[in-house]
Formats: sequence, C-alpha cells, structure tokens
Amino acid sequence: MLPFLVISALFLGSGAAPSSDPAVAAAAQYRTAHAAQILHDYADLLAIPNLASDQVNIRRNAERILALLVARGVNARLLEVAGAPPIVYGELGPQRSPGRTIIIYAHYDGQPVDASQWSSPPWQPVFRDPQGKTITLDEAVRNPEARIYARSASDDKAPIEAILVALDALKAAGRQPTASFKFFFEGEEEAGSPHLPSAISRYRDLLKGDAWLICDGPVHQTRKMQVYFGARGVTGVEMTIYGPIRPLHSGHYGNWAPNPAAMLVNLLAAMRDDNANIRIPHFYDDVRPLTPAERQAVAQIPDIDGQLRSELQIGRSEMPPQKVPCPQNPSASTCVERPTLQSAIMLPALNIRGLDAGHVGTKAQNAVMTEAHASLDFRLVPDEKPERVQQLVEDFIRAQGYAIVRDTPDAATRLGNAKLIRMDWEPGYPAARSDMASPIAQAVVAAIERATGSALIKAPTLGGSVPMYLFTDVLKTPAIGVPIANHDNNQHAANENLRLQNLWGAIDVFAAILTMDNGGAGQRSPAAAHQEP
Amino acid sequence: MLPFLVISALFLGSGAAPSSDPAVAAAAQYRTAHAAQILHDYADLLAIPNLASDQVNIRRNAERILALLVARGVNARLLEVAGAPPIVYGELGPQRSPGRTIIIYAHYDGQPVDASQWSSPPWQPVFRDPQGKTITLDEAVRNPEARIYARSASDDKAPIEAILVALDALKAAGRQPTASFKFFFEGEEEAGSPHLPSAISRYRDLLKGDAWLICDGPVHQTRKMQVYFGARGVTGVEMTIYGPIRPLHSGHYGNWAPNPAAMLVNLLAAMRDDNANIRIPHFYDDVRPLTPAERQAVAQIPDIDGQLRSELQIGRSEMPPQKVPCPQNPSASTCVERPTLQSAIMLPALNIRGLDAGHVGTKAQNAVMTEAHASLDFRLVPDEKPERVQQLVEDFIRAQGYAIVRDTPDAATRLGNAKLIRMDWEPGYPAARSDMASPIAQAVVAAIERATGSALIKAPTLGGSVPMYLFTDVLKTPAIGVPIANHDNNQHAANENLRLQNLWGAIDVFAAILTMDNGGAGQRSPAAAHQEP
Repeated sequence: MLPFLVISALFLGSGAAPSSDPAVAAAAQYRTAHAAQILHDYADLLAIPNLASDQVNIRRNAERILALLVARGVNARLLEVAGAPPIVYGELGPQRSPGRTIIIYAHYDGQPVDASQWSSPPWQPVFRDPQGKTITLDEAVRNPEARIYARSASDDKAPIEAILVALDALKAAGRQPTASFKFFFEGEEEAGSPHLPSAISRYRDLLKGDAWLICDGPVHQTRKMQVYFGARGVTGVEMTIYGPIRPLHSGHYGNWAPNPAAMLVNLLAAMRDDNANIRIPHFYDDVRPLTPAERQAVAQIPDIDGQLRSELQIGRSEMPPQKVPCPQNPSASTCVERPTLQSAIMLPALNIRGLDAGHVGTKAQNAVMTEAHASLDFRLVPDEKPERVQQLVEDFIRAQGYAIVRDTPDAATRLGNAKLIRMDWEPGYPAARSDMASPIAQAVVAAIERATGSALIKAPTLGGSVPMYLFTDVLKTPAIGVPIANHDNNQHAANENLRLQNLWGAIDVFAAILTMDNGGAGQRSPAAAHQEP
Repeated sequence: MLPFLVISALFLGSGAAPSSDPAVAAAAQYRTAHAAQILHDYADLLAIPNLASDQVNIRRNAERILALLVARGVNARLLEVAGAPPIVYGELGPQRSPGRTIIIYAHYDGQPVDASQWSSPPWQPVFRDPQGKTITLDEAVRNPEARIYARSASDDKAPIEAILVALDALKAAGRQPTASFKFFFEGEEEAGSPHLPSAISRYRDLLKGDAWLICDGPVHQTRKMQVYFGARGVTGVEMTIYGPIRPLHSGHYGNWAPNPAAMLVNLLAAMRDDNANIRIPHFYDDVRPLTPAERQAVAQIPDIDGQLRSELQIGRSEMPPQKVPCPQNPSASTCVERPTLQSAIMLPALNIRGLDAGHVGTKAQNAVMTEAHASLDFRLVPDEKPERVQQLVEDFIRAQGYAIVRDTPDAATRLGNAKLIRMDWEPGYPAARSDMASPIAQAVVAAIERATGSALIKAPTLGGSVPMYLFTDVLKTPAIGVPIANHDNNQHAANENLRLQNLWGAIDVFAAILTMDNGGAGQRSPAAAHQEP
C-alpha cells in the first residue's frame, strides 16, 4: 500500500480546491459518471422497509448492506445481540497498521411512519424537483437540488450509501483507504438503541479504535458542512399530581378541593421560568464551563437566529442573557452575552413536552379533575449525570411539600399527604464532548475541508441527544459527529427526503475521510518515508 | 278558601311534629297510601327522553307535564320562545289576592348521557336497593332507602313530581293552596338556559311575584334539608398560548424556541397559587363582605370537611386561612379563620378545568409544541361582574407581557409579539344573593321546617352557578333555592338516581309550601282575622 499512501500524502493539506485532491476528484468524477446507477441503487436500498420493530424486514436491510460491503472488499459480518436487529460490522484496510483506526457509525433503521401523512408511500422512493413536482431518475441526475423522498433517505441510510459509492470511486481510481476503518451500522437507533450498551460491552474488543465518526444528523441550516464534538445527554419524567378521587363540580368544591392542575402549574413554574431559566437549586452546579476554544467555535458558527425566528414566526427567543467572561477582560465575569441558539444549547434545558389535565375547548367541564399530568425532558451537558439531575429535581419537589410515589397511591397514602406526586423517570444518559483540538479531531476536520474546499462549522455540541457517551465514556474513544443530510429533510416526519447535492457532497467527504491522514508511518511526508529504515 | 286558611293557620308555627300539621299530615297519608301509583307515574314521566336538543321528545315532556298540571286544576299553558323547548307555565290560586305570589322554578330537561356508562338504559327507570340490587316497584314502596335510577330522576324532574303529588294530596284532603302560585318549568337548563333571559324579558308581566323558589340541586351531604339564598356567578375562558409555527426538536431548539407550555404554567401560576389564592390585583375588591347573619348561617352549617376529605381521599383542603373579625373583638380584623368548604364558596374561585399541550405518557415526544391550551372557570360572588373580572384578568395578562388576540394570529402578529395569547371568553353571568332575613324568606323557611320538623340548613349561597340574577337582578324578586334531591344522586353522570325518601320528604315539603303563610289577610291568626272590619 505504500505507493498509494505516498501519492495520497503528496496532496494532503495542500489547500487546493477539492478537485485538485486526487481522491476527492476521483469521487466527483465517479459519481458524475455513475449518477443514474447510484440513484437507482439507493432507491433500491430505501425500498426495504426499515422499522426496528419489523424483525423480518430490518434483517433484510442488514443482509443487503452486509452484501454491499462484502462486494466492495470489506471484511464484514453481522454482530448479533439477542432481541435486537443485527449490527452490520465491517473492517477495511490494515487493522494492525501503526496508523489510525477510524470507526464509522450510522444506523439503517428509520422512524415509524404515518403513511396517511406522506405524499407517496414511505418505502417507494420518488424524486421531486424543488417545486415538489415528481420527476424521473434521469431528470434527478441533472438537478442537484432535486430530492429523493423515502423513509431514511436522510436519516440514516444516506451516509451508508455515500460510503459505498466512495469505496467504488476509490477502487475505480485504483486508490485504497489510507487508515484502518471499521463500520458499525446499527438497526434500532430510532427505537432508542436499547441494546447498544450491551452490544458495545459484548464486542468491546472489536471496537477498539482512535475515533468514532457518528454519521447522523443534518448539516447546518446554511447548508454548510459541520462537525460536532459532543451531544447533550437526556433524561425524562412523567409526572402525575393527584386531586380528589373523583371529579368534583368546580362550583360546589372549587376553592376547597385541591385542584391538581393548579398544583401542577405552580410546581412547574417553580422549576422553570418562561425564559428557560431552571430554578432548581444547584441545577447548574455540574455544568462544565466551555473552554476558550469551544467558546470561539460557538462564536464562529453562523448566526441564523433572525432567519429562524422569522421562519418559525416567533417574536423572541427564550434563553436568558448569560454572564460570561468579558472579552476585554477575561478575568471579570460580569459581561452579559446576547443569547443565540448555539449558546443556548451549551446549557442544560428543561423542556415541558406535554401537559394533560381535565378538558379544554368544547369538551371543557366545570370540574376539579382527579389527576394532572406533565411530561418533561431534560437536556444535559457535561458534567451532569442523569442520576444527579433526577435527585436534584426530586429534592426540589419534596421541598415544595410533595411526597413522591412510584406507583398509583392507595387511599391511605392519598389521605396522609397534603401534596402527592408520582414520578416515573426514563433513565436517560449523560452528555459527551470530545476535545476539538486533538490530533485526530484536526485530522478529521482537515479531511472534510479537503472535500468541501472551505472551512467547516465546528460545533462543540449537538443540541439533541445521541448516546455518544458510550464511545467517549465507556469505550474511552473520541467521537465526532459528521452529519451529511440537508437540515430541511423532514427528519422523523412525513415526506423525509435527501437533497441530492448532499448525497453527492457526502460521497466526496467519505472519499476524503477514507484517504485521510492516518497518523502512522505511511502517512508521513514522502521525505519522512524515505528516512525509514 | 277561608275555612281552609283558618284551619291551616291554627297549626302554623306550632312547632309540633310534621304529622301534627294537617297539610303535611295529609301529604304523608296520601303518599303512603298511593306510593305504588306515585312511583309508577314517576317512572312514566322519567321514561320520556329529555335532552334539550331532542326537539321531538323535549316537547313530549312539556306536553305531558302540561297535561298533568291541567288535570290538577292548574291554569297552565306552554310559553314559547323561538328555538327553545317550551316553558311549562301554570297559575294556581287567587292571582289577585292581597297575599303572596310564589313562583316555583324547576327544569324538565336532563344532562346528555353516555349510555355505555349506565348500568341500565337512562330512560328505562329501574329501582335498586341500597346494595345496588334491582328490585320491583312493590319492594321499592316498602324501602325508603331504595332509589329510582333514570336520567333526571333527581335533576330535575323530582320536584315536578313532588309538586304534582302534593297537589293530589291537598285535593284528597279537601285542602287548597293558601297563597298564589305560579309554576315555571323550563326545558333547556342543562344546555345552559340560552333562551331564559329572552323568555324572562318576553313574559316579564306574567312573572310578577314575591319570590322565586328555585327547586334544583341537592340537599346537604348530611341529608338535612337546606335552602340557599344565592348562587355564585360564573364566567369561563379558553386560553391558547403560541409557540413556534411547527413542532421543534426539544434537543436542537429547547432553551431557545419559546415553549408555550412553560409560558402557560408560568402565567397560570402567576394568576393563582395552589392554595386557591387568586393573585390577580384587585380581584377581590368587589367582593361584598358577608353580613353578620350570613356569617352566622355559614357557621351553623354542619362541618363535614373531615368526612369529605376522607371520602375524596385528599390530604388537605385548598382554601387559604382568612382574616376575619375576631369573635371576641369584632373591631379588630386580624383573626385567622380555619377554612371550611362553606366558607370557601363564599369567595370567588379560579378553577383550572383543563390543560392540554403536546403529549404525555407513551405518546410523549421530545418536542417544543406549537400551542398550549388552558380552560378556566371563574366562580363569582356578589358584587363581582363578569365583565369586570374579564377585564382584570386581561389587564393582568397584559402586565405579564402578553398581547391578547381573539382569533388565530397571522405571521406578522406572531413575529411582532414576544408573548401572544388568544382569549375566548364565555360571557357568563353574575352571582346573586337574596336577603336571608326578609319576611318572605322567613315564611319559606318556616313552611319547610313545618314539613321536616327540624331546623333547616340555611346557606347564604350555593357554590355552583345558577342564573338566579335573572330573578333577583332583572326581575327584582327574591329567589330562594329549595333543593330536594339526595346529594349522592350521581348528578350529571351515569346512573343518576333519586333516593325515594327524598321524594317522600319532598312531597311533604311542597304540601307545606303550598299551604304556607301567604302574608295576606287570610293568613293571619284567627284572632287577627276577627279584628278585620
């Protein structure tokens, strides 16, 4: 492999336009020449229904992807964990080289569908132009702004397809991957990856590497490529506050019978204001401050707040002004920073995701209801732990005079407590954040910038939650998010789609990643290579 | 009529047991002798479906009741208002006598039914013993604790049936009513009496009298008879707070996109604490203090709070302690009174009757929802006016930074306002309260106490709302509530029922009312009558 590595190295970090990089140029040439075949093959892959719960079809997906990897010379197999869709696992390149080993994560399952909401059946891919008109495959080939519509078109079969094509392109150009690669494609991400921790544990020895690339999620709203170095953690809770055992006439009993909806709104308002401030004591204690590099990265992310507010028709954003170190005088900490979406997601969040009590509208009844329900999700940042957050929340609720139960309370419990709440927690998982400045992170960024020809957006964290902690905290391996789908892809909703230019760009990106600086001997400059014994 | 009046007067206020009052004794004798026929007739009346919206059947009810009144010598007819069920109106006794004219109100329509929730069809009356076993009519005759189950068995055909039997009983005993009576039985009360104000206005001349007796509602929970001299007013509102125009991922946008559920709980908590205190400035300003007589009446109402808390399985009651004039030193106002159900309903109430936003439980989604809804009802006391309450609420909401709209806002309105709420008010109506110490009130109380043989519970107000203001404020006539149904009658719910002892007792009560002190010449003591010229 030395000749290839040496040739590849000649172009590393040259800063030339993408087409001047031979691997990227090869990818671009290949995908242009074979665009119709690529779209045809991708539509084939998207036509296999891929709900994690659909045992027959989800395995068909795994077997198809396995075959596609094997056909490209990947040493691949299915990893099985009882009760879970198989993990498609593959190895490529010299596994024992002195260079880096990169593990590429994606998932081949998709979100459940409500077919009635789709313009076309979710597993019958169609192409549409930007105006929404259905077009032929040949027309789609000529229009990079066209999109392919199908469940998982963007989330998350897109990177799998792009990798397969990138492998084809390198092979066609007589090129080989520089570093060692492992592929880890799971089949139950949209079901919450319930078996991922046990799979990670069971196959820990297989999963050694220098970095995980998490290929999931959308690019920035400006359509610029971005990488993310962490994700918020999450936990959630269902809350039930109890009132009288039967509904009561609000005229005859209102003011006297405890109204569980009034209790609920007072409790929730005490926990969180309408500016996103979490009022629970010590809630922010465990928040690790951003590093200067992370702060700088946040500041460099394009500010799209105004555009987003307009698009979402909101007259304000929610996050409170933050005290930050003053730029002129970093030792003082009294400056107030204007909140942006990017700075907002650097903090933990308490989101009320549901309220339900009695009836509203035409069904409203003049009654004191028996129960009031709320559903919350908490977004966590380093170094918060779900268990600690749950404890702080419950301590606070007890301090408001509530007794907490884990099941429907009996009569004695109801009578014996002035305020009673049932709390049902989702265990959740912690946040993760990898070092933006590590050599491996810099190498990944450099590879992608080689493909795109411009500076990446580097986000210290993703606002949403993915269990990156399994890689960073359990496997002790840095993890970097490399999303390639368009942001306006209708993720998780009806009419999910992938903008074709995002597919084409992703092929270039994976060609660059597959030929990235491997950190080992073969990856040094030709001069350095010649100095080897 | 003089002989009857004189004889009747001999026993007025004698304090003897009910059976020693000839009218009451006659009623008791008659209903005992004809119990089977009475129950048979009542079941017939209850078998006519009586939803206000069921135009054919609701008129069948009116015509049946009209015929029953006419058969008893009542000068009766139907009063029509376009679009409304007819009002059954009747006159009895000397309309131009110098004595009193009493107008008896009841309603013959019933609440909508969910037949699937009923143990037997709602318009096929059945008898059950206290253990819930279905029994024959003959068995029911022998068991005053038996109940008749049917829609409107208690609410509100019961007083109509009791009046009809009381008229039969007086006739059988050769007795006639003392005062003049008018009957006013409406057919759309459970639909909110939408045409009652126009009927009152249209037939104002017919509806002159000295007092309205509102025969609706339940007796006290101790099964003691009670009368009420007022009712709380009511108004209600549907509130919608707006968030982003489409649901957003709570991870990617939580902390930044305004969460309408968080806004809602903060707004509602600012309006009302979980101890029933209304925090809206000036909300209590228009509350008319209780008179000493009213305060005394409240204090004399049996305290069933402990029993109710136990029955409802609640560990506390909601109303805050009140500052009241200290009993030892009425000029000081720093004493704190322990709240009771009865004192709680003397104050206005803000009841949250519904909350709805996003999803809870298994349907919970990690999203910032687009809208959050609440439904409130306000219970008003003298001298609050619905319009003023609505104004105070809206002033307060605006002071929290909200713009108020009356319709779904457009994009410009959404974008132009940091906080936006839609308020849809039900107009509602004010409270009413009649003078407990007036001669007519004392006469009604005396008549009922003659029937029951014991002191009544006298409630200054009913917690619930009935449009008594139409009588007190529009017609300028005192109104007194005379409920006769058992409190545990499943009012408005499935398996509505009337305890037969309540029917028997009601017949005695109406016999006493029909022979009450008429306040005119014929009603004086025999000695006084002899002094007439």
